[in-house]
Amino acid sequence: MAAQPDPDSPGQTAFLFDLDGTLLDSVYQHVLAWSEALQEVGLSLSVWKIHRRIGMSGGLFVNALARELGGQLSADTLARLPQLHLEAFLRRYETVVPLPGAIELLRTLTEHAVPWAIATSGLKRYAGRALALLELPADTPMVTRDQVRFAKPDPDLFLTAARRIGVDIRNSMVVGDSVWDLLAAQRARALGIGLLSGGYGREELFDSGAFRVFEDPADLLAHIDEVGVRRSR
Amino acid sequence: MAAQPDPDSPGQTAFLFDLDGTLLDSVYQHVLAWSEALQEVGLSLSVWKIHRRIGMSGGLFVNALARELGGQLSADTLARLPQLHLEAFLRRYETVVPLPGAIELLRTLTEHAVPWAIATSGLKRYAGRALALLELPADTPMVTRDQVRFAKPDPDLFLTAARRIGVDIRNSMVVGDSVWDLLAAQRARALGIGLLSGGYGREELFDSGAFRVFEDPADLLAHIDEVGVRRSR
Repeated sequence: MAAQPDPDSPGQTAFLFDLDGTLLDSVYQHVLAWSEALQEVGLSLSVWKIHRRIGMSGGLFVNALARELGGQLSADTLARLPQLHLEAFLRRYETVVPLPGAIELLRTLTEHAVPWAIATSGLKRYAGRALALLELPADTPMVTRDQVRFAKPDPDLFLTAARRIGVDIRNSMVVGDSVWDLLAAQRARALGIGLLSGGYGREELFDSGAFRVFEDPADLLAHIDEVGVRRSR
Repeated sequence: MAAQPDPDSPGQTAFLFDLDGTLLDSVYQHVLAWSEALQEVGLSLSVWKIHRRIGMSGGLFVNALARELGGQLSADTLARLPQLHLEAFLRRYETVVPLPGAIELLRTLTEHAVPWAIATSGLKRYAGRALALLELPADTPMVTRDQVRFAKPDPDLFLTAARRIGVDIRNSMVVGDSVWDLLAAQRARALGIGLLSGGYGREELFDSGAFRVFEDPADLLAHIDEVGVRRSR
């Protein structure tokens, strides 16, 4: 176990990023892809309720669905949903673009030798496309859903990401757009930075424990000096 | 001009409903349709920012876009956007369904002789499809964008709707999912009831002056006695 942070010599701040809604403008496509997958198996859940679940692990999402829809979901239906969602999302994938400032933010952190990684509830096979969109090399540190036991709001994704880049989670900022990112940040004992770019309200993010809330990666970059990054002049 | 409300004999409460996100589960389709229309003319605006503009009049929306995107929009491009949006929306229309409780809520109001009308920033030619989805007759009182000078957040749509069904706006509840509905309600001197079913946060709706906030039409129906409707036993 790591020692307590030393107030006279705190470690350098590190950044652990969620992907969808935080670096990529992809939340609404995911939302309608889930809605379409549900309609394909004859289920109807209001789209805004799907939006409020996005960013959870697929397993928790499907459990939440099962609760919301009562006994309408057979085991067979539950098992088909993730694949139907993936197909519906890939049909919309060409409309997904990086969020404003995402590429510049990551590039700036790298230039200043600030450690960072990506931690996403998405799957490994989707990660390559994301790296290409963000103009990142294939060896970018990225932890995906299939590499940890529990996804958000459990802290595993962020804890594993911190370990992979060799930083103390207690010196890390978790950057995410959903309440699940911010709850996972608290459980990991990181500080959470909320971004509005996933379409949630500012207060929802503060209520989930956000230390700061910014509009999108460009807005975070404009305030990066306020969250522990010292930029050379 | 109508007289001041008489406290000893207040008029019956009337309800003026927004359509998209309030009675129909159509906001996310509208959002991605606008995003696609913008991409078709080579523009990129984050999807969450489009979401926050939905429910404004098309004209105000395009003006807001022009401000947001600086000088990138030619007059020709601006003129093409509404049609491109409509086409992209209609491609998604088959996934639009009534929100939970919408049909039952309107039916209950009718059964109890509570006056109500629909007031939407949408266009007349789209209204017929909406009435069919909601199982409403063709003579349902509905004011559309093309029938008033200014759309939300100006109060015209709701004022015209109240006049059309012969009720005093000051006895009316405006039911809507967006901040634009609730701001228009205040300008009209109605009370605003916010619904979360358009995907905005609860606090955004209260900050815009909502008198009450419910999840969706089903939740409003469950609390209808609290907002001025006396149901027979």
